[in-house]
Amino acid sequence: MNKYAILHRPESNFAYATAKNKLIVILRVAANDELEKVEILYNNKYAFTKTRSRISMARYAEDGLFAYYRAEITLPDARFAYIFKITEKGKVYYYSEEGLSEEYEFNLAYYTFFQFAFINGVDVMPVLDWAGSAVFYQIFIDRFARGDYSKDDKYINTPWDSEIDRYSFTGGDLDGVREKLPYLKEMGINALYLTPVFLSDSNHKYSVKDYLTVDPQFGDNEKLKGLLTSAHGLGMKVIIDTVFNHCDAGHEYFKDVVQNGKASKYYDWFVIDGEYPDEKRGNYACFAECKHMPKWNTSNPSVRRYLTDIALEYLKTGFDGLRLDVADEISHEMWRQLRREVKEKYPSALILGEIWHDNEHWLKGDQFDGVMNYKLQKILVDYFGKAPVSAKNAADRMNGILVANTEQANANSLNFLDNHDTPRFLRTTGGNKDKLLCALCAMVLFPGMPCVFYGTELPLDGAGDPDCRKPFDWSFKGREDGYKDNFYKILALKKLPALQGTGCKVRAENGVLSITREADGESVTAYFNTSGKAKRIEVQGEVIFGLNYCGDRILNDGTVVIKNIKN
Amino acid sequence: MNKYAILHRPESNFAYATAKNKLIVILRVAANDELEKVEILYNNKYAFTKTRSRISMARYAEDGLFAYYRAEITLPDARFAYIFKITEKGKVYYYSEEGLSEEYEFNLAYYTFFQFAFINGVDVMPVLDWAGSAVFYQIFIDRFARGDYSKDDKYINTPWDSEIDRYSFTGGDLDGVREKLPYLKEMGINALYLTPVFLSDSNHKYSVKDYLTVDPQFGDNEKLKGLLTSAHGLGMKVIIDTVFNHCDAGHEYFKDVVQNGKASKYYDWFVIDGEYPDEKRGNYACFAECKHMPKWNTSNPSVRRYLTDIALEYLKTGFDGLRLDVADEISHEMWRQLRREVKEKYPSALILGEIWHDNEHWLKGDQFDGVMNYKLQKILVDYFGKAPVSAKNAADRMNGILVANTEQANANSLNFLDNHDTPRFLRTTGGNKDKLLCALCAMVLFPGMPCVFYGTELPLDGAGDPDCRKPFDWSFKGREDGYKDNFYKILALKKLPALQGTGCKVRAENGVLSITREADGESVTAYFNTSGKAKRIEVQGEVIFGLNYCGDRILNDGTVVIKNIKN
Repeated sequence: MNKYAILHRPESNFAYATAKNKLIVILRVAANDELEKVEILYNNKYAFTKTRSRISMARYAEDGLFAYYRAEITLPDARFAYIFKITEKGKVYYYSEEGLSEEYEFNLAYYTFFQFAFINGVDVMPVLDWAGSAVFYQIFIDRFARGDYSKDDKYINTPWDSEIDRYSFTGGDLDGVREKLPYLKEMGINALYLTPVFLSDSNHKYSVKDYLTVDPQFGDNEKLKGLLTSAHGLGMKVIIDTVFNHCDAGHEYFKDVVQNGKASKYYDWFVIDGEYPDEKRGNYACFAECKHMPKWNTSNPSVRRYLTDIALEYLKTGFDGLRLDVADEISHEMWRQLRREVKEKYPSALILGEIWHDNEHWLKGDQFDGVMNYKLQKILVDYFGKAPVSAKNAADRMNGILVANTEQANANSLNFLDNHDTPRFLRTTGGNKDKLLCALCAMVLFPGMPCVFYGTELPLDGAGDPDCRKPFDWSFKGREDGYKDNFYKILALKKLPALQGTGCKVRAENGVLSITREADGESVTAYFNTSGKAKRIEVQGEVIFGLNYCGDRILNDGTVVIKNIKN
Repeated sequence: MNKYAILHRPESNFAYATAKNKLIVILRVAANDELEKVEILYNNKYAFTKTRSRISMARYAEDGLFAYYRAEITLPDARFAYIFKITEKGKVYYYSEEGLSEEYEFNLAYYTFFQFAFINGVDVMPVLDWAGSAVFYQIFIDRFARGDYSKDDKYINTPWDSEIDRYSFTGGDLDGVREKLPYLKEMGINALYLTPVFLSDSNHKYSVKDYLTVDPQFGDNEKLKGLLTSAHGLGMKVIIDTVFNHCDAGHEYFKDVVQNGKASKYYDWFVIDGEYPDEKRGNYACFAECKHMPKWNTSNPSVRRYLTDIALEYLKTGFDGLRLDVADEISHEMWRQLRREVKEKYPSALILGEIWHDNEHWLKGDQFDGVMNYKLQKILVDYFGKAPVSAKNAADRMNGILVANTEQANANSLNFLDNHDTPRFLRTTGGNKDKLLCALCAMVLFPGMPCVFYGTELPLDGAGDPDCRKPFDWSFKGREDGYKDNFYKILALKKLPALQGTGCKVRAENGVLSITREADGESVTAYFNTSGKAKRIEVQGEVIFGLNYCGDRILNDGTVVIKNIKN
């Protein structure tokens, strides 16, 4: 076997508890190793030297070079010592903390076995109680719907139905969102992700001047509470985009530093090089290269106190979770404090980080529940976009996500096709609506909470910012009934029990990508074909959704979803 | 190149900050890959797509199958995006979050580069300010020295100079330790690690009945304060063995549960299956299989509060740190709280966990400063013991330690040859004192804080518990001056500036193991030979210590330590 490929790490994405007496253990090997058996030998660590139980590991996922074997173990004891036993062509190998060997000294095992020393309940990361069934809708407030026609609307500089630019204000507000809740409910939406709503000069409101006052363009704090009450009344959760990386240069505290320099009590709340922050010299840390958005110094405990209190206030107001903007640039210490204080009072509140890159360090149970699933979005763009990669490539990379984090973190993460920072997915597919629907279906099938960007149900088209932020077209002009019906049907798939568990298998066979979910004796598999050729698949079970599907074949740009009831 | 071998993980032991503007980056490849160049291409993440700086990585360590390339980067910007560029036989490879490839799309890099999103000062794990120069001495109180002859000593059941068993009480106490401080000071000791001293029926006192009352066998709380004051007066630190995994069945809270079952307010403080804990049925979690040591339920916030307050009280009393017993079986949540509250008040307090196995999960900056270095101890046993493994084997495994954690965690860890839970090292070497001295020298040279188990300076002999816990022989009968001199000289090596930094290189050449430390323009290398044959080495620089060393050769069971001043 390939001794360079084998990999295991205890207390990681390769060995984690899902309950006080349940452990998932994963072993990586070379995908082309021909292994007869992969087993775990285990026992209570004090008894391991003398005697061991064994459990077989099943081949679970492949990501190209590597295959992943997996076992779910129900523990008789919270102390778990283990090594791997691998059989290849009749030859036996052992794999322990000391590496791969052909012999293993069980009498010295106390030094070399892997271990999960003791599973303490408080360290078991939970799946959020409402994550399994959540179907999100992301609303960019200025562009979704206007409800309040009595407000001072001199700030509106662009009519609803005309071209927008980066500086457009079109008038969308919280009353608009509230008015449209029944429309969203009917679509199958049961959770909203609102981009920021607090005081800010920008249309997007990511440059915050006051974290606790709703921007008058969008309404006021009472209207926000009203919206939350109405949403909750319809069984909808609402999470808020929480911008703790930076504020606006017009925030009172930054203004105080501009005026008083080092003498300001807020000087250390920012990261400044020199006596005074100077926008022209740019001598302070900020968001990206935007000097009007100075970066908070979250190494400072006072800043962590200030921001954590704001988060608690959001949840007290009625929000059901926080989507943390630019989460990876903020101190881990900030996130640990925030999680601790938030979960103590609001255990069901979602803590979701915006991280585009490897994110394991944030998903160990002490910081976030989940992340914005940018890795999945990139795969969907690549597989359902204009120049599709192979099904194998997509499956390999999806499997890469499945093994990169715990099942719980994956279930708590937010899947999306596009958002306010990316081109509209319809642009990605070159206007092909079938491909958009297929991608939506894949996004719903993959573990995590699906999230639709407002207007995808029309669908809206658009390149990157600001073109992806066009106003919603409430005339529904040119909308096709077939598209709408399929869109609604795909979202409804999320109600299937199989899609509410955590297990998932992704495969590529004969150029067809498939995603299988399984729970409570029911399995659901979706097949996707973007190969440019009709593909035949063996279908067993009930077809519960099909697009360009004719009997036993999926046509190009098509999908079919099959349900099987197990005995 | 071997595509199965290459490995990097961002924000891990392979990419970590040592200061707000310093990052260490490590890349693993196959040891037998013949690479011409390994480089990092990097920039601020917002600029990476357009332009990159490059830095060469040096081959730093080998652990058998793998080689580790390393670079220390001083950052112009706290945001760090990077990929690796590897040249082998004129062919170029790129390695990013998407894996190894022959081409890399820099225009899509925002999705695929590795990143250290932003270095926040508060997340940079520090080396403890006193770790660089610390030389520890571990004292098992009942067996080290008796100072108080006026105490009620009816509990003493074994004369100082006779055979002991597991139930022996020989009379050592805190006054004895205090009396011997000048002796320890003269040896070069500047830090003490005391096994537990609080109320307990056992001689070892790991079964605690009352965490805040010094056991009368050892003295009282005033005598403890007196000892700490005297030690501090001599410039010595003192850390205390802190037993938070379990208590004694005689602890008031457990007794309350035995009496009142589920009606007790302390029922949830333990892990009990049933209405009442029952020692005969053993229906509760405990230490190992010792039912008289019930395990605390550190998933319970009240227990965490109780134990954290005790830790704070220890530090208030004057202890300089905590050695956490059975640390891996206690909840991570407990350790995060303890660190947070301890470091807020006592930033220089050492938090040291007893973990025999892979320990990365505890050493990310939110839990421990360092661990008891059992991995090193096992290598020293294997290389300096009766049937030595090869120098290559020892070097590979030492390098394994160096790359398994951050430099800071390694510097904060405690190195030892033996302790109260292992056979005496002299027993390991079959009575060979030269090998013991060589192992001591290796233990002092390796990054971390060396710790001598009481009596090793005689040296005491002994098998495992209880034989390793014999009373100290204050008659010094049979002690050899040569051994003593060498022992003292080896401990004195720790004063060299080169041994107080964090850098280390371990090599095996021609069957000789070498450890090199370097800091402030000085390098110190120790060479070790246990091969059974005299070994010639090329020596450049000043010989500052030698054992079985003749000019250019190290005899069997010998060592030589060389100092070089760099220009």
